[in-house]
Amino acid sequence: MDEFEVRPGEVVGSAPDRADAALIFIGRIRTPFQSLRDCPRQGQMDGPICRIEIDEPWWQAMQGLEAHPELQVLYWMNRARRDLLVQVPRTGAGRAGTFALRSPARPNPIAVSIVAVTAIEPGAILVRGLDCLDGTPLLDIKPCRRGFTRQNEGQ
Amino acid sequence: MDEFEVRPGEVVGSAPDRADAALIFIGRIRTPFQSLRDCPRQGQMDGPICRIEIDEPWWQAMQGLEAHPELQVLYWMNRARRDLLVQVPRTGAGRAGTFALRSPARPNPIAVSIVAVTAIEPGAILVRGLDCLDGTPLLDIKPCRRGFTRQNEGQ
Repeated sequence: MDEFEVRPGEVVGSAPDRADAALIFIGRIRTPFQSLRDCPRQGQMDGPICRIEIDEPWWQAMQGLEAHPELQVLYWMNRARRDLLVQVPRTGAGRAGTFALRSPARPNPIAVSIVAVTAIEPGAILVRGLDCLDGTPLLDIKPCRRGFTRQNEGQ
Repeated sequence: MDEFEVRPGEVVGSAPDRADAALIFIGRIRTPFQSLRDCPRQGQMDGPICRIEIDEPWWQAMQGLEAHPELQVLYWMNRARRDLLVQVPRTGAGRAGTFALRSPARPNPIAVSIVAVTAIEPGAILVRGLDCLDGTPLLDIKPCRRGFTRQNEGQ
């Protein structure tokens, strides 16, 4: 929490201190990015291979993953602050409300990324396209919805 | 929980009874779907208009939403069971692990949908493309990532 500084022009709210539902971490993501400074602004399909490690209780839930060359990965940005309402991007331009930005700082810091699968191992998936810190907690893996596609592979 | 029956061939695990992180509900989604039977299998961009209601503490975070004709909406499928590892779809065909399906039943029942915005009101967004129950808890709203698009609007 509070890893991200508040920049001039940003608006901090008072997020309610309550738990409406509980998340379970089901594994973790191993990436080459050891600090926020290392993380690219957005995952690239030609970026480094990252390793999604799934904890043993959910290994059976991996059945059939081999049919999906792309997956949607949900993870928990556990170092993001949750109380920013209006944010100023790093560049200084484009001040906007949190819901109009994909910044990690949001009331529920859940990231949604599409990844390209390069290999499936027992209890792990090797993928490209992630931009998160090494050790980031894993929440979910889903096949991509039919009807959606990545428009430009390199973007 | 446990709203969904277990079908022959499905595998039930023992999800750990712990909370690794806490979610805050930031509003709710009003839809015409009052029971699971009413819900379409997948949201349609020509489906009924639904109303995303955002609670007052986060109204400032809506600034700039008008720049985005499509949004990614995250919500909590609070009636889904969380302990299914292998599932058999309603049709009976296509038995697969939870991570190879977009079924609501999953360790962290977070839905991710792309919606088309039809209007923005104070504290609310009117959209098409949702398939969830009336009253579903809202978790997050994000702009769509550049480079992704809906391939077939009607699918």
